[in-house]
Amino acid sequence: MAEKLTKQSDDYPRWYTEVVQRADLAEHAPVKGSMIIKPYGYGLWEAIQRQLDDMFKATGHQNAYFPLLIPESFMKKEAEHVEGFSPELAVVTHAGGKKLEEPYVIRPTSETIIWDTFRRWIQSHRDLPLLINQWANVMRWEMRTRLFLRTTEFLWQEGHTAHATAEEAQEETLRMLEVYRTFAEDYMAIPVLTGVKTDRERFAGAVNTYCIEALMGDKKALQAGTSHNLGQNFAKAFDVKYQTKEGVAEYVWATSWGVSTRLIGALVMAHGDDAGLILPPRLAPIQAVVVPIFRKDDEKVPVMDACTKLIAELRAAGIRTHLDDRDQRPGWKFAEWELKGVPVRIEMGPKDLAAGEVRVGFRHSGEKQQEKADSLAAKLPAILEAAQQGLFDRAVEFRKANTHRVDSWDEFKERLDAGGFLYAHWDGTTATEEKIQKETKATIRCIPLDDDMEDGKCVFSGEPSKRRVMFAKAY
Amino acid sequence: MAEKLTKQSDDYPRWYTEVVQRADLAEHAPVKGSMIIKPYGYGLWEAIQRQLDDMFKATGHQNAYFPLLIPESFMKKEAEHVEGFSPELAVVTHAGGKKLEEPYVIRPTSETIIWDTFRRWIQSHRDLPLLINQWANVMRWEMRTRLFLRTTEFLWQEGHTAHATAEEAQEETLRMLEVYRTFAEDYMAIPVLTGVKTDRERFAGAVNTYCIEALMGDKKALQAGTSHNLGQNFAKAFDVKYQTKEGVAEYVWATSWGVSTRLIGALVMAHGDDAGLILPPRLAPIQAVVVPIFRKDDEKVPVMDACTKLIAELRAAGIRTHLDDRDQRPGWKFAEWELKGVPVRIEMGPKDLAAGEVRVGFRHSGEKQQEKADSLAAKLPAILEAAQQGLFDRAVEFRKANTHRVDSWDEFKERLDAGGFLYAHWDGTTATEEKIQKETKATIRCIPLDDDMEDGKCVFSGEPSKRRVMFAKAY
Repeated sequence: MAEKLTKQSDDYPRWYTEVVQRADLAEHAPVKGSMIIKPYGYGLWEAIQRQLDDMFKATGHQNAYFPLLIPESFMKKEAEHVEGFSPELAVVTHAGGKKLEEPYVIRPTSETIIWDTFRRWIQSHRDLPLLINQWANVMRWEMRTRLFLRTTEFLWQEGHTAHATAEEAQEETLRMLEVYRTFAEDYMAIPVLTGVKTDRERFAGAVNTYCIEALMGDKKALQAGTSHNLGQNFAKAFDVKYQTKEGVAEYVWATSWGVSTRLIGALVMAHGDDAGLILPPRLAPIQAVVVPIFRKDDEKVPVMDACTKLIAELRAAGIRTHLDDRDQRPGWKFAEWELKGVPVRIEMGPKDLAAGEVRVGFRHSGEKQQEKADSLAAKLPAILEAAQQGLFDRAVEFRKANTHRVDSWDEFKERLDAGGFLYAHWDGTTATEEKIQKETKATIRCIPLDDDMEDGKCVFSGEPSKRRVMFAKAY
Repeated sequence: MAEKLTKQSDDYPRWYTEVVQRADLAEHAPVKGSMIIKPYGYGLWEAIQRQLDDMFKATGHQNAYFPLLIPESFMKKEAEHVEGFSPELAVVTHAGGKKLEEPYVIRPTSETIIWDTFRRWIQSHRDLPLLINQWANVMRWEMRTRLFLRTTEFLWQEGHTAHATAEEAQEETLRMLEVYRTFAEDYMAIPVLTGVKTDRERFAGAVNTYCIEALMGDKKALQAGTSHNLGQNFAKAFDVKYQTKEGVAEYVWATSWGVSTRLIGALVMAHGDDAGLILPPRLAPIQAVVVPIFRKDDEKVPVMDACTKLIAELRAAGIRTHLDDRDQRPGWKFAEWELKGVPVRIEMGPKDLAAGEVRVGFRHSGEKQQEKADSLAAKLPAILEAAQQGLFDRAVEFRKANTHRVDSWDEFKERLDAGGFLYAHWDGTTATEEKIQKETKATIRCIPLDDDMEDGKCVFSGEPSKRRVMFAKAY
């Protein structure tokens, strides 16, 4: 705790890694590219899971569980899928002391094993739609890893659905994209841009990949969730047909969608500052920390009694609260809870006690205010909601200030150096997309869903374009 | 649905597999010895998880997440541990298109990776106790597998704790055993015997293994959960020491404890009958199913309206309810919900509607009673609790009727043929234990914790014994 965090402006990646480790979110594991999620970080994941799971169930989905290991041959059934994932596979060749006849891969995603199963589960139109979600660990052998953002093993949810028509599959794809957008904005307090990926950035095996893109504190973009319309690709690869009402056998239509522990990285980078994490109240494992303040021993008993009473009232009001009664200086404690991003700090000292008050400090704004102790439990839910909104508003402002329409190649390069989201015309070719990336490291994050069509000329090639797309440097 | 289940008395193992599959709990996966947990089965696991997780948190534990893959060398650091687990390991030898320098094993349990981590987390007595739990998938390459009871991959929780003294570790071991006992009895409605394992049945690396043992419908025993006192074995293997208050470096003391998806197998076999599953109301994904009954079209509208109103009232009362409005005969629906073990069935037909009543049927007793429709939501929670208690009482009676004290070898063998728990004297040697198993297939399930000491003679060798132990044929 004694050592200061690296400043964001000095070395943002280093700041990120230090915050993740010192705030007790996660640490590196002695296994290449993988991490140990510490209790505080896992508490955040549990809050994310619980909320998303409720939203999935409210939209008619059920959870199930499919095997970790997938026969290697399954991966090869969908041509694009195997091409996209095979470089990243971890392979089990031996088990129970023997060499396996066919190797198994550790799931990098579960389309193949799930569509092999759906073939048995789907016979008739009455079996559709089939709306399944799985919470699981997956593994992708990445070369460059970073805690939460890209790890060889990560935790995620993967939704897999089957539908009778192309229209229903498309509706589902967009419905779940909207669930992700709502979750990101209303719970994570992170505004996100929704859009569709270019051919080049599409999920291996999808017809279309939709995404939510968020802006991080260093003005780089982060893909925070994806929703894929898989068309009939997997149904054909795994021969999944259903009998229509008219008795005709048709291939079914599919979607898949996922978010992962990467969301924790998004929370760190979207809101954090030089003092550490700033967590949105709706997801914070600890929403309010109570720090008793006293110097003399005869002050300790009445202050601790009052704090204990306050904690009980806050808990009864449904607030996730922690009493920091450690034998440490208040300043040391303040720094730790700032580092850990606890939204509200409640200080109570002898003077506060005498006045029947507490001092309430906000992590996101640094503001402090005196509150009556006996009405705090009743007021705190609204105070936390205001903090949640304040955090979101600030992120919206930040994104606004860092979003630009650029119309020339020079302007593109100049703006890109400063970071942010760049809206520019693009000629629609993969060749141009690749050249732009090679020259600038910018990628097309998405073709925004809510954009008006607008004639223009490609910022790079000068060829005609019907709409702007969003470019950024990205994680 | 048309085909009848195999009767328990005809072929119990076949009955078990049929119930698991037809009740939509799970099915075999195209990966050796592993399974797909279907939504209804996973709903049961979610109910189990939620309750246990609350109990773990109420006893001060926090969740965290450790890597799936463990360096092979870690497994070898604790001599007994590697001996116990190495025949069952699945090994990753290749990843990212290359052969790995050191193979990784898929965790069969996580003591090694967690104790390697605890070395970094524990320095001082202030870091103790460290009370961690993990919800995860694990893999043990078993030769003979059976859905839920023994699968190569399974889902479980594993608690791992570190303590300053041997006494605290022993207290924790017994505290978590008691959590398991409470959960099994109060939620699963399965009475369990608590006891300690013999040297031979102990967890690989433990000083003592405690267990809960349940009696299944075929009178075989099932180990439903274990809690291990690991002494200082893992602390020594991974060099985990803490500084005492006096400034001395001491090895810490450890426990680990786990239950798995095997609990679902226990639920099936402890309560099920020839019609299928019987689920305890506290864990049932659907506690009450409403089946509308009508013949003529003009009956349909008022009956469906009344059912919809009833469902809304039941849900508002916090009851997990399902309205079966499928276009099928009532008898067909009844059979399906019996198979799926839904505790309470609510039928409403035109006559019931006219009388303002519904017919309430109990899965566990087969009894039916008329209830006033408008007071049902208020009464149903108590009705469900009574069904929960009824199920437990029946299981207690069944165990009582199948528990015997045996004092001669002939009596032992004769009683064993009929199944059940046999309390007999044993001379305390592994040699005798092995001979008894070889001759009869019975194993010592545990040395019961609550038994009085009693002098006697070993039922097999005639050597002196200080107490009875519990023998049974087991899963």
